[in-house]
This record gives sequence, C-alpha cells and structure tokens, in this order.
Amino acid sequence: MVNTMTICYIIAMEAEAQPFIEEFDVQEVPGFFAPLPCRLFETQIGEHRLTVVLNGKQHGSDLVGCEAASVATLAAIQRLQPDLVINCGTCGGFKSEGAHIADVFIGNAVMFHDRRVPGDDAWGTQALGNYPVWEGAKALAKDLGFGMGKVTTGSSLDMQPCDLQIIQENGGQLKDMEGAAIAFVCSLFSTPILFVKSVTDLCDSGAETFEEFSKNLAAASLALRDANKRVIEYLIKK
Amino acid sequence: MVNTMTICYIIAMEAEAQPFIEEFDVQEVPGFFAPLPCRLFETQIGEHRLTVVLNGKQHGSDLVGCEAASVATLAAIQRLQPDLVINCGTCGGFKSEGAHIADVFIGNAVMFHDRRVPGDDAWGTQALGNYPVWEGAKALAKDLGFGMGKVTTGSSLDMQPCDLQIIQENGGQLKDMEGAAIAFVCSLFSTPILFVKSVTDLCDSGAETFEEFSKNLAAASLALRDANKRVIEYLIKK
Repeated sequence: MVNTMTICYIIAMEAEAQPFIEEFDVQEVPGFFAPLPCRLFETQIGEHRLTVVLNGKQHGSDLVGCEAASVATLAAIQRLQPDLVINCGTCGGFKSEGAHIADVFIGNAVMFHDRRVPGDDAWGTQALGNYPVWEGAKALAKDLGFGMGKVTTGSSLDMQPCDLQIIQENGGQLKDMEGAAIAFVCSLFSTPILFVKSVTDLCDSGAETFEEFSKNLAAASLALRDANKRVIEYLIKK
Repeated sequence: MVNTMTICYIIAMEAEAQPFIEEFDVQEVPGFFAPLPCRLFETQIGEHRLTVVLNGKQHGSDLVGCEAASVATLAAIQRLQPDLVINCGTCGGFKSEGAHIADVFIGNAVMFHDRRVPGDDAWGTQALGNYPVWEGAKALAKDLGFGMGKVTTGSSLDMQPCDLQIIQENGGQLKDMEGAAIAFVCSLFSTPILFVKSVTDLCDSGAETFEEFSKNLAAASLALRDANKRVIEYLIKK
C-alpha cells in the first residue's frame, strides 16, 4: 500500500460494528454525511487514518441491503478517498464447503445472485457483476491463515431455489446482503475492496435462517473484531 | 413548484431515453459525472432547466438495476439539486389490473418486492420501502388523463413466485427494476419523485418476459416520449 493510507470499513449493521468500534476506539464525527443517514467513525493509527462508515438507519432499523450499501460506498469514496475499502460483516456459509459458525473468511471474488437478466452475454455478465477484489487479498489470507471464498450478494436474508441455482452455477460461498453492491461502486472508482466475512448461519443446514442469524450474530461480530485487529495490523505493517 | 425549477429525469436504458433525448434536444455534457458512468444531458426550457441522467454502461451493457440507479440518483441530487426527480422507464403491467402494452401510468406509491427480511416490523417495513412519491402526482395524472399504479421494484426481469406473493400482498402494479431505489435515495434528501412508466410486458400473460420486453421496448419508449412531453408542459405551466 502507500506510506500513509486511509482504510475505510463499510459495515451495514450497528451490532456488527459495535465490538470493532470499541476495540479501535474510533470516534463518531456527527453529521459528517448529512443529510445522508450514513455515520462516520474515525481514528489515527500512527500516520494512517482508520475510518468506519455505517449505513445508518431509516424506518426504525439499520439500513441493510444493496441500495443503502451503494449510497454509503459512494459517499465514503467521494468524501474519504480511501486507499482500501473493507467490507466486513456477517454472512451465510455452506457446511458443504466446510464453513462453521463464526468462521472468518476473506473474499477472493464477488458476485450477485438475485439479479436475473436474460438476453445476450453482456446483460448476464453485468447482472452477475463479478467485480474485482483487492489484489493483495490472497496474500493477506495466506499470511494470516484465513480461508477464502467467493462473496455472493442478494437483497434477501433467505435463499430461494432461483438464488441457490445461480450461487451453485457461479461458485458462490459467502452469502451476504451488501458485498457486491459495495464492490460495484468501488469498481467505478478503481478503489480496491477487501471482504472480511464471518459466518452467522449455514445456508444448507436446514435450520431457519433468521433464528440462526439472530442466535449467532454476537459471536460472529466478536470473531470479526478479532479478525479485523489482525487485518489492520497486517495492512499497517506492509 | 418553484418559479425557476430544475427537473431531473433518471432513465436506466439508452433505448428508453433516445426518443426523449431527440424530442427535447437535450445536449450531453461529456464527463460531467466522471469517473461515474452516468451521463448528463440538459437544456433550458424558458427559465427552467431540464436535465436527463442516464445510468451509463459497464461490462458492455446499460447499467440497469437498483445499485446503478442508487448511484445515479445520489450523484444527480448532489450535483443538480433538482426540484423534482422523474423516473421514466418501462415496466411490466398486469392485465388483471387492466394494463395494456405501451399504456403509460403515473406512480401513486412505490415499494420493493425482492428484499425479503424477516424479523420485527421495522425490518419488514424497511425492506418493503414504501417511500413517498411527489404530492402533485395525483393531480397531474388526473389533469392529463393518465391511470395510476403502485410501482414495485426488483433486481430481476423475471417474476418468481416469492416476488408475486409480495407484489400481491402489497398492491404492486407496475413492475420495474429501478423505481424504489431511486425513491429511496430521494427520500434521504426529501426530494420529490414522480414516476412515468410505460408497459412493455404483461406479468400475468404467460408470455416469456424477455421476448415481450424486447418486442415492445420501442413502442413503449415512444409512448413515454409523448407522455413526457405532456408532463413537462404541465409542470412548466404550473
């Protein structure tokens, strides 16, 4: 990376971010993105700037999903000009792929699984997305001992048969609700994107997703905090 | 409206916009949104500014869908500060609701149908969206003789059973791929949004959506041009 860098975490849910915010003692800059609902937290680590952007709230709940993630990412890149965007958050994993609850994975690719647009190859290619991820992701995962997987994004917590078909045909492994939207916006600016994802539920366990998600959210968020501590140390030492 | 107003059309596909661009002789301002792929076209009509923002292209095709619409709308509001955003484009209609190919409707409400998030009421409310539309939409539709309907947005051209269930339970009538994303971003700025939608396909006809869409795109785009001519005259005279 560059000598002095700005790292920008983009996190959808406050519950996912809270252990991270406490660990790194990042301070909120109230109203930084107003009138957008996104919230900025930041601190200095040596000569580096560590920023965290939450999507914020509307209608009484955290703004999850691809539209809020698109807005937060565009605003973050415009205002913070990060050298690296990191999307950390929870995801669904597949036990058939060896995932366990609270495992942390680094993304090695990213796609959408719920944008079904037929037609010629160009439409299908665009609908899937398959945006680039940061070229340093593989070395980071290897050096820190994290597994890797392909992030696959949709706007719903559940997984319908049409979603599973696209996930299987295209090798999706880490099912989330924001990753590809963030990567899409990063692709427009050629801003590198790194995914740090922790498993809250197993898509192929037969268990009810929302129950599993709720039960495991705290543990996965703590695992994310510990993983991000190592990720940030690694990035700063590079 | 205000004495001197800026109207901003947001249109996903170049084919949808072309007859409109020719009719109003709007001129492109190259690179206005760079490095974003969105494209600005504009003209003056008397003391009013008429602008058209296209999502632009990536991966060799027009950027359709909710992420590109979120980006285009945020960039448009930031840079143009429109008094009124108008999303015009094609949609799927329901013959059970009396829709015919190339009919033009004005939106009286807007929701998402493919963001399935269970949990308490706040999550469900946010997932559906149900963002406000411009308070003058009803009078405009009445004065110009347009029918009205509820815009319902998803990221796919097809309609799965899970989509239809949410559409039916929540009164969706005009099925598109961008409307609610645009309305979401407008809601963050309290910018009024008007929907002008023309039917390319009937979701309940049994016909293959992509074939119907392709066959009727030109006719629907011409119908949109004619409708927008009347809409703009109406707005300017107000």
